Amino acid sequence: MNANVNRQILLVEKPAGKLGPEHFKLTNGAIPEPKDGEALLRVRYISLDAANRAWMHGATYRSAIEANTVMAGGGIAEVVSSKAPGLAAGDLVFGDTGWQDYAAVPAKHLTRMPKIEPMTHLLSIYGVAGLTAYFGLLKIGKPRNGETVVVSAAAGSVGSIVGQIAKIKGCHVVGIAGGKDKCRWLTSELGFDAAVDYKDGAIFKALRAAAPKGIDVYFDNVGGDILEACLPLMNNYGRIACCGAISQYDGAPSAHGPRGVPGLIVVKRLVMQGFIVMDFMAQRDKALADLQAWTSSGKLKVQEDVIDGLENTPKALIGLLAGDNRGKRMIRV
Amino acid sequence: MNANVNRQILLVEKPAGKLGPEHFKLTNGAIPEPKDGEALLRVRYISLDAANRAWMHGATYRSAIEANTVMAGGGIAEVVSSKAPGLAAGDLVFGDTGWQDYAAVPAKHLTRMPKIEPMTHLLSIYGVAGLTAYFGLLKIGKPRNGETVVVSAAAGSVGSIVGQIAKIKGCHVVGIAGGKDKCRWLTSELGFDAAVDYKDGAIFKALRAAAPKGIDVYFDNVGGDILEACLPLMNNYGRIACCGAISQYDGAPSAHGPRGVPGLIVVKRLVMQGFIVMDFMAQRDKALADLQAWTSSGKLKVQEDVIDGLENTPKALIGLLAGDNRGKRMIRV
Repeated sequence: MNANVNRQILLVEKPAGKLGPEHFKLTNGAIPEPKDGEALLRVRYISLDAANRAWMHGATYRSAIEANTVMAGGGIAEVVSSKAPGLAAGDLVFGDTGWQDYAAVPAKHLTRMPKIEPMTHLLSIYGVAGLTAYFGLLKIGKPRNGETVVVSAAAGSVGSIVGQIAKIKGCHVVGIAGGKDKCRWLTSELGFDAAVDYKDGAIFKALRAAAPKGIDVYFDNVGGDILEACLPLMNNYGRIACCGAISQYDGAPSAHGPRGVPGLIVVKRLVMQGFIVMDFMAQRDKALADLQAWTSSGKLKVQEDVIDGLENTPKALIGLLAGDNRGKRMIRV
Repeated sequence: MNANVNRQILLVEKPAGKLGPEHFKLTNGAIPEPKDGEALLRVRYISLDAANRAWMHGATYRSAIEANTVMAGGGIAEVVSSKAPGLAAGDLVFGDTGWQDYAAVPAKHLTRMPKIEPMTHLLSIYGVAGLTAYFGLLKIGKPRNGETVVVSAAAGSVGSIVGQIAKIKGCHVVGIAGGKDKCRWLTSELGFDAAVDYKDGAIFKALRAAAPKGIDVYFDNVGGDILEACLPLMNNYGRIACCGAISQYDGAPSAHGPRGVPGLIVVKRLVMQGFIVMDFMAQRDKALADLQAWTSSGKLKVQEDVIDGLENTPKALIGLLAGDNRGKRMIRV
């Protein structure tokens, strides 16, 4: 990082189909001047999330990303200088810094972060990933001791934590992931009771065998065919926590939704509920205390996938959408 | 009705495609002898419901209907004789009598009914239709004063009551129904704020115009394309009460589900929840008291569609599936 240059990665074109390196460009911009109420940030770690790709489709819970602007993304950053009360040089914050070395961001859009080691945990277990897993599973999925919990994208940042929390809560836990290695890791390292390899085909049969008492909670990160396979296996009064729809993000819009909606929702009295982690921020302190206790006691293992260099951010996101990562992927800027 | 003969309508074959008269047969059976714990019933009114057709697909919240048995269906009946404690000749009950003049039914599967005039109200406003509308709207949809409520199959037995209760609760109410006459009836007679004719095409545009502030509660009786049209119009934190999927019952199984599931559920934080009226029976007295108060004060209009003659039951169900009825359809046996 050159101290006088602000490297920035622009989204030069919104992808119509699959996201590729040609949709991004690395440029050198100026280090911005913070305005009143803003802080100048030096970005340390950039979070990579499937949602980054979803933002390109249009406005969701945030406004759409526009072409020829710095690619949006959450990051951990240090305050270099501040024109905002309550923030001072040296403070650590989380916010939408974008994919760049430096950013000037209004203080009201920043969250102060404690200085912990390793700092990367602020993006994984104590960040959006950990909190999404915690609130989505416990507040939406509401698993009870002895119930069966299934989670998709189970080797990813959120899924790997969901399954471990479900084990802590006394559930029979089944992870769905792509490839034998990931599946072996889920059962041998993270304590999942079973893992289903969706690349192996016959997902419905494999799921039925892995969840012989049916599914009480399905934590859905992917939508599409895997959601469709889970629906007939849901038990009466089952809960589906709708966290994401990764299968739908990268490529052409889906031609159809999952069969069984709404017929199976009616006869099984299911609840399908979407959520965004920001909606639960009032309960953040309790969540962080639980996550910290589980992590320090070794009940919860934190898996991180840290890649060096801002210039590698596009490739890292493209790989994440293809399922290359294990645990929380991020860029060390 | 000949006092010595028990006319019965059998389902002779389960339909692979559309239900037709050829799937039924009228026969004369014997009047059954009640066993211990059973009551002999004389059926007075048979309820016709889209769910009758859904039961033919396989086990749902009840076991599947089998071919060459008396067609299942709920009815209001008088006790002729009883071998069950707590039931005596002359009592009025509701239960799954099937499509026949007489039935012997275990008392534990019967619900005692008060003697009110008109007796038909026990199948409409004070029966499954009224209670389904009441609980589905208020306990699942949870509408608040000023919110927008949309209901499909709005001229049907449940939908016509849902919309009126939503008006009582101070909502902006939009009904979706088939045909100009039904739509006019919803707005001019039942007090709906707007009605959308799904036979007119362009359902999404019409809905958007009828619900300019978006949809907070969608009471879904039909699934399919209409559910798909509602999803993008849902407001954040909206609720979809999944009551039925009429569009999927009569004919070949649907090739696909609604697009937008689960993507829009996530970003809008929607709740889609299925329910069955039986799950709420502990709160029945309060519901009946409310429905009675609204009906007697004229705030809630009861629409019934009574057809004479057991022999007309198949035709009446086939017509109901095609949307011929207005309000609660039933057979006077």
